[in-house]
Amino acid sequence: MKVQVLYSGGQDSSLSAILLEPFFDVELVTCTFGIKNEDYWRNAEKAAGVIGFPFKTLKLGQEVLDAGIDLILRYGYPRYGINYVHRMALEALASGGAKYVADGTRRDDHSPMLDMSQIKSIEDAYGSMYIRPLAGYGKHAIDALVKEHFEIVEGPSIEKADYESEIRSSLNMRYGAATVEKLFPPQHAQSRVLRRYKK
Amino acid sequence: MKVQVLYSGGQDSSLSAILLEPFFDVELVTCTFGIKNEDYWRNAEKAAGVIGFPFKTLKLGQEVLDAGIDLILRYGYPRYGINYVHRMALEALASGGAKYVADGTRRDDHSPMLDMSQIKSIEDAYGSMYIRPLAGYGKHAIDALVKEHFEIVEGPSIEKADYESEIRSSLNMRYGAATVEKLFPPQHAQSRVLRRYKK
Repeated sequence: MKVQVLYSGGQDSSLSAILLEPFFDVELVTCTFGIKNEDYWRNAEKAAGVIGFPFKTLKLGQEVLDAGIDLILRYGYPRYGINYVHRMALEALASGGAKYVADGTRRDDHSPMLDMSQIKSIEDAYGSMYIRPLAGYGKHAIDALVKEHFEIVEGPSIEKADYESEIRSSLNMRYGAATVEKLFPPQHAQSRVLRRYKK
Repeated sequence: MKVQVLYSGGQDSSLSAILLEPFFDVELVTCTFGIKNEDYWRNAEKAAGVIGFPFKTLKLGQEVLDAGIDLILRYGYPRYGINYVHRMALEALASGGAKYVADGTRRDDHSPMLDMSQIKSIEDAYGSMYIRPLAGYGKHAIDALVKEHFEIVEGPSIEKADYESEIRSSLNMRYGAATVEKLFPPQHAQSRVLRRYKK
């Protein structure tokens, strides 16, 4: 059974892939808006190679980026815009025929996060099954598993390939750095996987 | 890392154990109130042997059974009484020193189910980590995984070893079969694992 996992190169989506590996054929998929001179997805490609899974990119339309940015500007914080882009990414995989789609969202996450009606809507519309391997894991259990499986680099300015990177960059180009600073929390912790300890 | 999985011998708790197996040392634990002439836990012991994990029973006190039955009678349906017993079972494992405790509750389950404050309360009080391996899986994905890993027997009258069996039996002794019929939905689907296909 093949599963496509939305992948950023960070610890959560990497751990999701590891948890699925014994039971599914895992393919990692990183979404990109394909903005010129932006290659954040290369960080995910590198991490995918390190943990040892097939990797591909999926291009999301400019209209998804625009609608996500509109939501962020309207609310004054990233949550709903990020949620929207994440839902569009899952829909893009499902509508493309993926039978199983997965991500690295945790039990305690608020964003990105689909509500139950959005999940059912994707599953019913496309016949896909959405899996959240970390949905039943809290922070301490995830920390322990990550420590056992990966060497990671952590910090506020780590480049990986989540939607936030491209959205921030696009906001920066359109509205300037001050707007980005205002909309995004300053200490948003990032991680990227450098090495997998065992396979 | 050792995890204790609350186990009934049914497909959900069996699948939970399988999903944890590559990452933890799994021990299956079946709770019993130790009522005389009742050995529902033997069904779980048999299933544990079939899927190949160490097994033990955990005795819950009579006061837990009584409080569970009180809740079922008060509300007129089993949900809150079952939830209460399940929470007490997880607490018993956590207070006994289990670092990781798990169960077979699904994304779409309503009972047994802890709310987030009850989960945090157990995790904070005992330093345990609670894992729900099926929390991120919907019905169709679980069906597909069960089909791949187990031969099961299904039906309304399958004997396994969930709390419901002993609670029903105890209610029957105290209040008679008509009360049990009134309180529990008639078509409650049950399953028990007969065989594991691969390991």
